[in-house]
Amino acid sequence: MRSKTALLFVIATLACAAASVAIAFGREAEASTAYVQNIPRGYRDWKLISVAREEGELDDIRAVLGNEIAIKAYREGKLPFPEGAIIARLAWTFLPSEENNSAFGRAQSYVAGPPKNGLQFMVKDSKKYAATGGWGYGHFEDGKLADESMLSSCFPCHQALKTRDYVFTKYAH
Amino acid sequence: MRSKTALLFVIATLACAAASVAIAFGREAEASTAYVQNIPRGYRDWKLISVAREEGELDDIRAVLGNEIAIKAYREGKLPFPEGAIIARLAWTFLPSEENNSAFGRAQSYVAGPPKNGLQFMVKDSKKYAATGGWGYGHFEDGKLADESMLSSCFPCHQALKTRDYVFTKYAH
Repeated sequence: MRSKTALLFVIATLACAAASVAIAFGREAEASTAYVQNIPRGYRDWKLISVAREEGELDDIRAVLGNEIAIKAYREGKLPFPEGAIIARLAWTFLPSEENNSAFGRAQSYVAGPPKNGLQFMVKDSKKYAATGGWGYGHFEDGKLADESMLSSCFPCHQALKTRDYVFTKYAH
Repeated sequence: MRSKTALLFVIATLACAAASVAIAFGREAEASTAYVQNIPRGYRDWKLISVAREEGELDDIRAVLGNEIAIKAYREGKLPFPEGAIIARLAWTFLPSEENNSAFGRAQSYVAGPPKNGLQFMVKDSKKYAATGGWGYGHFEDGKLADESMLSSCFPCHQALKTRDYVFTKYAH
């Protein structure tokens, strides 16, 4: 009888441990798929959606590009964006251009310097990213995905733009 | 004898008139081919070279795009640019974005508003535009080519950049 109890205990312990491992793996998988994991290939070749300038702490000049699916939706005014749409945000140092200023005859010109403030992407996949409005968010610094605290701040901000399918940037005609 | 003189006079007058017409046509043809006459097709689909901001009277935010030949040359650092390279300069009103500011929690964000300051192009054709460093210049407002006084101001300014084949904009990596 004692040995049977001991065996049951061992089995229960193993089952418990296995369940814990499964839950832990599950959580990890859930967390890792909640954001865009890799920089989409060829994004630098994509077409231009618009440009912007951020002052303050960001202090950059930026371009927003879209893959073919995103650009087509923008041009057709199609909302929500279709599955597979990807929007990329590139940003650079806001650099005064002595060369341009000299040509214009006054200090007025700023160009894109070295990259700044990372690379950001929104990837439309309604199932995979159902918890964040159907968009996965990714922020990369030197090719490396940002940490959870940074990534989890994307959606709460974009949520304000629900009527435009959570997308801030408008197409520059 | 008198009728012969009269005939010679008529012939000379006609020859002279014909020559004047030929010269006038020649001049017109020369002037009209000195600049880019038409907006290159599909330029809005071209890849991004860089972005910029002009303060002062221009007060705009801009993007510089390139056709495949131009982009390839930029990425390979190839100078001078090959025949057929075209560089496009688009510009828009520098518009404060209340929407973005509200998301960021402070006034710092500017986006592209309506188009501004026309569309500009540089087209590489060493023979056709030999007199202006091998580049033809074009400036269009509402689809219409600017007048001679505006167009003739392009090259004198770009001439300062002879060592970079007369091109101001550097590629934004």
